[in-house]
Amino acid sequence: MNGPPTDVARLLVSCPDRHGIVAAVATYLAGAGANIVASDQYSTDPEGGMFFLRMEFHLDGLERRRDSLTTGFAGVAEPFEMDWRMTFPGERKRVALLASRYEHCLLDLLWRWRRGELDCHIVAVVSNHPDLERDVAPFDVPYHHVPVRPGDKPEAEARMLDLLVGEVDVVVLARYMQILSRDFLDLIGCPVINIHHSFLPAFVGPDPYARARDRGVKLIGATAHYATEDLDAGPIIEQDVERVSHRQRADELERIGSDIERVVLARAVQWHLADRVFVHANRTILLG
Amino acid sequence: MNGPPTDVARLLVSCPDRHGIVAAVATYLAGAGANIVASDQYSTDPEGGMFFLRMEFHLDGLERRRDSLTTGFAGVAEPFEMDWRMTFPGERKRVALLASRYEHCLLDLLWRWRRGELDCHIVAVVSNHPDLERDVAPFDVPYHHVPVRPGDKPEAEARMLDLLVGEVDVVVLARYMQILSRDFLDLIGCPVINIHHSFLPAFVGPDPYARARDRGVKLIGATAHYATEDLDAGPIIEQDVERVSHRQRADELERIGSDIERVVLARAVQWHLADRVFVHANRTILLG
Amino acid sequence: MNGPPTDVARLLVSCPDRHGIVAAVATYLAGAGANIVASDQYSTDPEGGMFFLRMEFHLDGLERRRDSLTTGFAGVAEPFEMDWRMTFPGERKRVALLASRYEHCLLDLLWRWRRGELDCHIVAVVSNHPDLERDVAPFDVPYHHVPVRPGDKPEAEARMLDLLVGEVDVVVLARYMQILSRDFLDLIGCPVINIHHSFLPAFVGPDPYARARDRGVKLIGATAHYATEDLDAGPIIEQDVERVSHRQRADELERIGSDIERVVLARAVQWHLADRVFVHANRTILLG
Amino acid sequence: MNGPPTDVARLLVSCPDRHGIVAAVATYLAGAGANIVASDQYSTDPEGGMFFLRMEFHLDGLERRRDSLTTGFAGVAEPFEMDWRMTFPGERKRVALLASRYEHCLLDLLWRWRRGELDCHIVAVVSNHPDLERDVAPFDVPYHHVPVRPGDKPEAEARMLDLLVGEVDVVVLARYMQILSRDFLDLIGCPVINIHHSFLPAFVGPDPYARARDRGVKLIGATAHYATEDLDAGPIIEQDVERVSHRQRADELERIGSDIERVVLARAVQWHLADRVFVHANRTILLG
Repeated sequence: MNGPPTDVARLLVSCPDRHGIVAAVATYLAGAGANIVASDQYSTDPEGGMFFLRMEFHLDGLERRRDSLTTGFAGVAEPFEMDWRMTFPGERKRVALLASRYEHCLLDLLWRWRRGELDCHIVAVVSNHPDLERDVAPFDVPYHHVPVRPGDKPEAEARMLDLLVGEVDVVVLARYMQILSRDFLDLIGCPVINIHHSFLPAFVGPDPYARARDRGVKLIGATAHYATEDLDAGPIIEQDVERVSHRQRADELERIGSDIERVVLARAVQWHLADRVFVHANRTILLG
Repeated sequence: MNGPPTDVARLLVSCPDRHGIVAAVATYLAGAGANIVASDQYSTDPEGGMFFLRMEFHLDGLERRRDSLTTGFAGVAEPFEMDWRMTFPGERKRVALLASRYEHCLLDLLWRWRRGELDCHIVAVVSNHPDLERDVAPFDVPYHHVPVRPGDKPEAEARMLDLLVGEVDVVVLARYMQILSRDFLDLIGCPVINIHHSFLPAFVGPDPYARARDRGVKLIGATAHYATEDLDAGPIIEQDVERVSHRQRADELERIGSDIERVVLARAVQWHLADRVFVHANRTILLG
Repeated sequence: MNGPPTDVARLLVSCPDRHGIVAAVATYLAGAGANIVASDQYSTDPEGGMFFLRMEFHLDGLERRRDSLTTGFAGVAEPFEMDWRMTFPGERKRVALLASRYEHCLLDLLWRWRRGELDCHIVAVVSNHPDLERDVAPFDVPYHHVPVRPGDKPEAEARMLDLLVGEVDVVVLARYMQILSRDFLDLIGCPVINIHHSFLPAFVGPDPYARARDRGVKLIGATAHYATEDLDAGPIIEQDVERVSHRQRADELERIGSDIERVVLARAVQWHLADRVFVHANRTILLG
Repeated sequence: MNGPPTDVARLLVSCPDRHGIVAAVATYLAGAGANIVASDQYSTDPEGGMFFLRMEFHLDGLERRRDSLTTGFAGVAEPFEMDWRMTFPGERKRVALLASRYEHCLLDLLWRWRRGELDCHIVAVVSNHPDLERDVAPFDVPYHHVPVRPGDKPEAEARMLDLLVGEVDVVVLARYMQILSRDFLDLIGCPVINIHHSFLPAFVGPDPYARARDRGVKLIGATAHYATEDLDAGPIIEQDVERVSHRQRADELERIGSDIERVVLARAVQWHLADRVFVHANRTILLG
């Protein structure tokens, strides 16, 4: 990747499905001189369902034409009752990574970012522990230690909100082991992506790997999703599994689980950064 | 496969783990002139755990030496408090397949059996519907229609027990949609293998595919397990998953689920027939 | 599946990429009163590359408006130098299956077809052996035995051309073990889909499974592709693999390979029937 | 992992298959007071083939009994013409990592090693470039820059041999981009593990990712193997693949390929360190 292209924009639309949406959008963009380089769409039901559209287009001199382009599109959007955004890959999203003591997701994201696989600015690492500061140092990202002591979680969350609100476009919980309050999720003002282990069947409660082992599961997995107040039940972005056997001890299952977590979380973050994830009701539509 | 080998036997052992088990077993078999062609073992804990052993051996003239071989081994087994069996692939296990209206698991098993992939006698197909009789006809397996009407399940189960008890070594529920009673499972006197769909996360209750779709799951799967009184919670033999997306309708998810079910069930039956599956507490140990 | 929808059509376009294609197409369809229910596109390069578009649209009373719709679209297509087709799922494609003695691919396709997973008419099974006639009988598809004896392949191919030319829209080689001549592929006048085993690394020549075993490969697979004169090197439609180990004998590898073949071939046929596969140079673009 | 167990040893045997091998080995170990905690075996053919055995056993006070244990076993091994070794997990293997400019395999191995996933001493990183020194620094492993200039490869290899011979038990080529000479492989005196990309079908020559893309492959993969004089054709230890589509550019395919490479290489190194990989002819037998 040689930096994001500067003359490319994305148009993200959701609206009630009906005749003529694509024609209206494509005609507007063609009239503006844009070339649609990618387009994907989905309708929950052509008769009375919801329609989702992700278009990526190229337009010479985009930067100085952004305002007129968006103003003009508002006129297209209005009769279709579109919920819409235009995003500009040239303006990288700002990302904060929250972690605790486990380093596997955090380092994998930082490492992929340095390799150019995550098209964003990572502006902060926040942890409730100091342990990972040395690991983060080579990546030249500020490390904020915000401890959470029994009874002072509201204060800790307030400190994090001070650090992050208005400064970031997405928060990634890279195995951050504190439960974020509903207030935090309301106030942070941007999407929050979480990762957690998953099993067939599901195990609720402590020591899930030990319980998965006792049950003899043959597959263990991980799920990345948007955090909602019910922390582990938000819209699923990505999942994957790995095969295991009776021979693995619980700590080995956990290690395999860590490997899946870092891969699944990286994919979810990549897709979010590319504006590929639409949320509808409690599920995601992945376009692009 | 050119028919099962006639001079091969399997020794299946479980016992408290302690020193000298393998030496005692191997020395006995070597003394008898047998050659161990495969051996796999597992211990839940070398200190005070349970030990599991599956050995496959070749012995010239096995057939006429079976009695003395097993009698002799009893003397080896006794001091170690072994729970043990010797099985003879030359004596194929007798299998009954139970189905309802879905044919995918049933036909796949019959087809693999005809190809020589399932080393067994399929002695009966039992269904609570007549629908699949024509499909089963080309396989020359008797088809028993045992309807289950509201209120007469005990009678239906009694008829099935009449047909099967003493005639089969394993029952496979190839999408048999009736819940078998605890009494049936007690009286049938042999293992019962079941298959059902699985999701991450799990969905309990009706219409699981529709609910998986509403939740936006990215993987759907199937689990094969031994049936216990709590029908879907018995020891897991095999699981697998397939990737899906928001684009699949619930009926398409169900079709993909069917494809996974037939593969997972076939593997579970193959492993059971090869005496590879040991049950310990509520999990399986897969040796071989 | 409750039969193909009658008011749905697909528009398949490839042309040099340039501004305004999507707008022109979508505007034409909107003007005709159509609702685009699915759309996918791909450009090899927005600057001077090739553009591919697959649109699925719904139009009330499509049947009686087909002629005017296609005639009208020709006017849209011309200035863009489009290579285009309109297809109508309501008119199922006619398929011939060619097989030899292996039944796994053939029966799996017939079985999926009967379940409604393959949206087509299977109008003929042609085999150079009589062996599979009994298996095909329950599916009510004519079975043509066209033997190929040493030296008379041209005559056999001529017989097959007599049977098939003009009668089928796609030919599927479901493990047909004769090499088709370049003449046959030229004269048959429709796409031909083939399936064959694949390994990492590749093995050319006889006994590939034995050689894969000698090399200790850990994955074996299958590739479905369009047949071209260089029979196994045409555009790849789909591939998949399965994990194996040193424990499998060559015949077991072959059996696992068969399982992959039938799944990969079924996917390739489904995608072809849904007009999802575009061929460009020697590769496929899978839209939809 | 809490450090390798000190009272555990592994016995690794290969010999012509015949009656009584397991009995002799197990009886010897039982007589010595050892408890076999894991055992796996494989025979290429019970009649006249090669037999492979990996046993892991626990013996109190192993350290001071090692000499007598190995001396005594020589007497068991001799009549069976065993090729055998006893290894002691308590004595970690010494590993050298060779890299060039790509960091993905190198850093993943170092990171897994620090997490306790690779049971070894990493004693040296050797690179023909200085680029990765800063990345390696946090792991406290000596970094040796041994440049290879046109025409002086023999000198460079001699320097590496000086550094490594007698100091390491295994060399891992973590994307070391120089071809090692046959002399180097002869003189290094220990196994060398290599990783490279793999495709279905295979592509030989430069720019394989670009060529895979032109051919429209749907799966790309990686193979880890022992290096032999024919560098990429040695015995395969592990392989894996990932699904790709026409949408990925060659550089994206390469990135996906990198992800597979690091996972496949890590598995191969873990298995080698655990003495699980036996080489027979040109293939590997993976026991344990």
